[in-house]
Amino acid sequence: MTSSDIDRYFDALIRDIPDFPKPGVLFKDITPLLADHDAFTATVQALAAAGRDESGATVVDKVIGMEARGFILAAPVALALGVGFVPVRKAGKLPSATYAVSYELEYAQATLEMHTDALEAGDRVLLVDDVLATGGTAAATQKLVGYAGATVQALAVLMELSFLHGREVLGQTPLLALRTL
Amino acid sequence: MTSSDIDRYFDALIRDIPDFPKPGVLFKDITPLLADHDAFTATVQALAAAGRDESGATVVDKVIGMEARGFILAAPVALALGVGFVPVRKAGKLPSATYAVSYELEYAQATLEMHTDALEAGDRVLLVDDVLATGGTAAATQKLVGYAGATVQALAVLMELSFLHGREVLGQTPLLALRTL
Repeated sequence: MTSSDIDRYFDALIRDIPDFPKPGVLFKDITPLLADHDAFTATVQALAAAGRDESGATVVDKVIGMEARGFILAAPVALALGVGFVPVRKAGKLPSATYAVSYELEYAQATLEMHTDALEAGDRVLLVDDVLATGGTAAATQKLVGYAGATVQALAVLMELSFLHGREVLGQTPLLALRTL
Repeated sequence: MTSSDIDRYFDALIRDIPDFPKPGVLFKDITPLLADHDAFTATVQALAAAGRDESGATVVDKVIGMEARGFILAAPVALALGVGFVPVRKAGKLPSATYAVSYELEYAQATLEMHTDALEAGDRVLLVDDVLATGGTAAATQKLVGYAGATVQALAVLMELSFLHGREVLGQTPLLALRTL
């Protein structure tokens, strides 16, 4: 699997949906890619590279997926890396004690939560999501990981929307974006 | 992996949360199981059996996961079976043209959607979710699959809450429940 293979899949299987979720936004729909077994497998393997060192050894203790599309990618990445999966969810969805972080959206506020016992102090964590846009979700998740005394090793995404400058809110965290738009 | 191995994981790694999401409900929290790599792997393999025949050959064309916890299990099951993944989502989340089915919850109505081009006529589909409760989600998803001219081969879940009688709304669809409560 080379990066040109991934590029070919992305060209063929990520489609543009104009004016979704609101007028003027060009939404990148990854559902055709998920429906293609070979492309989905290649994507998972490419994302998992962010949790490995140069020898191919896994260097993270957990993979976090952010609700909801992040779950679809992060769970297979965790299995590929041989580590456990931790969900970060919207407010009120996780049943046990949680850490919570609120952050600003364009016209609203959102809250993300993670179980307080989901990570151990010192854990190294890989975050996986479909898109890095403004970085609000990723920055909030980094805070949740920090509350647990753990460290974000990297953020891996299918697509970085670089015109939204999400990379700038990540601080020193390495970013693996399979495609940058 | 035997069913007693799965039972042991479930005993140790699915925890009861009283009074969630509301008083009187005993919530079954699967996040400890997801955080344990071996248990998560064993669970995915056990669920995938619902998409194989006796020789081990895959007999489904797609795996559907229902938002949101269903995504965590269904995506790895699709990869294990060598087929594509299709998300069924809450109203307004899928960007392209959708089929929609509304159904009654205890005090409200819910709507599920699936892209109209997610399945081909004649496709055999495995549904995967964490819990079968009243069966409202599963029955609505069966309708969505039917609108596409496809067929539900089976429903595979971690847990069946048999006192809620969800099995009765599934009709002839085979159910694989790794544990029945």
